[in-house]
Amino acid sequence: MRPADELREAVEAYLGTLSFTPELGDLEAALRYALESGGKRVRPILCLAVAEAAGGSVEAALPAAAALELVHTFSLVHDDLPSMDDDAVRRGRASAHVAFGEGVALLAGDALLAEALRLSLTYESSEVARDLVDATLGMIGGQYRDVTGDDTDLDGLHRLKTGRLFVAAVRMGLDVAGIPESERAVWLALGDDLGILFQVVDDLLDGDGYAARLGRGPASQLADDVAGRARARLDELAVDTRVLRELVDLLAVRTA
Amino acid sequence: MRPADELREAVEAYLGTLSFTPELGDLEAALRYALESGGKRVRPILCLAVAEAAGGSVEAALPAAAALELVHTFSLVHDDLPSMDDDAVRRGRASAHVAFGEGVALLAGDALLAEALRLSLTYESSEVARDLVDATLGMIGGQYRDVTGDDTDLDGLHRLKTGRLFVAAVRMGLDVAGIPESERAVWLALGDDLGILFQVVDDLLDGDGYAARLGRGPASQLADDVAGRARARLDELAVDTRVLRELVDLLAVRTA
Repeated sequence: MRPADELREAVEAYLGTLSFTPELGDLEAALRYALESGGKRVRPILCLAVAEAAGGSVEAALPAAAALELVHTFSLVHDDLPSMDDDAVRRGRASAHVAFGEGVALLAGDALLAEALRLSLTYESSEVARDLVDATLGMIGGQYRDVTGDDTDLDGLHRLKTGRLFVAAVRMGLDVAGIPESERAVWLALGDDLGILFQVVDDLLDGDGYAARLGRGPASQLADDVAGRARARLDELAVDTRVLRELVDLLAVRTA
Repeated sequence: MRPADELREAVEAYLGTLSFTPELGDLEAALRYALESGGKRVRPILCLAVAEAAGGSVEAALPAAAALELVHTFSLVHDDLPSMDDDAVRRGRASAHVAFGEGVALLAGDALLAEALRLSLTYESSEVARDLVDATLGMIGGQYRDVTGDDTDLDGLHRLKTGRLFVAAVRMGLDVAGIPESERAVWLALGDDLGILFQVVDDLLDGDGYAARLGRGPASQLADDVAGRARARLDELAVDTRVLRELVDLLAVRTA
């Protein structure tokens, strides 16, 4: 059972040596720039931790985990564009469109999505790819609500925009471990909890979303409640959940 | 053997009743707007004609054919954006970003790509999806060359930007018909020819690309030569190629 920091190293190593489609030519530089921006790699780590806890291997889950990070990165590159959030800075560096120009950033995002699907299609079964595509479409639905200012249903918005990739991380880990649908309910509920936990803590750090809507105190309480609920789910699973527990703790107290 | 105009009707009917992911919400209107813009449906018709000529059924090939049209439409929606070609008009109507705003058009393009992959994943085998993803990545590589003004190798650029989806149309038709890789060489060469033919005629209609580079006379001659080569390929195939021959003729003399 590898701890979360070792899983993170495995993700970084895999992403660092990932081969992209040669026909992309120099566009590859923009993909690598966006990917190597020091993200927390929460989604791929979650996928690997679930795969290993459920009896699969980290190595077998790495393409699925990387595919999740590529979809997440695609969404950030497009979200940062002037026609969306217009963010010039991402994690302390110039956003992709500032570094490479808008047209190139647009294509880099498109290519990241397509490369993610190529990776997810390296499995014998197309289950992993199907789960990734479904989650991506849900996420895009969330981005659409966000860009049109439809935030009356904040839970619903975040369940799509953030939550779908968290649940997909769990689902794809279970795909790799070969866990049947009938044994997935608690795992998937855990993915849902982790998505909400991530988002509430994110909003507390940024002072928007849930923190603005509920106030800091109630939002902190919500984060504690959801983390507690996630830990209770882990108690229900008859497997070694030490690394997943570590991940809940990391998400609950993260400061960046 | 259905003639090309009946295949086109089958494509239109299938696209018209296609269900999109419910979580996309009202974004669906932008996807439908972009899809229902009166395109020629050349790629899906080619896919259906190949599938039927190779012994498969049109019905079985419809999801693959529609997926090709969705990828093509995604590329048009993103190409028309101000940061790319900045085209306000597409086929006599407002481009998607003019009709819906830039942010929504960006997301509509993303969703069209993801929906295309969802469709291609409805097959038992993941061959169709793999072929579609590979072609999409090649096409994006071509768009990158285009947007960075790298047109020194005009053949190479168009083989990626236009050609890859034409070859994929043939390949996916063969996937559906169950034709093994060892029997595909002539078919794939035909796809390559049709991609070049389409592009040269397109450039003759627009007065750019090959027409500008070679002059109208030599470009017309090139189109005739490639059409002749495509017909010679059809002579090599021991199947009923009447509809494919009709398609070559339509591409060679099209006026829009």
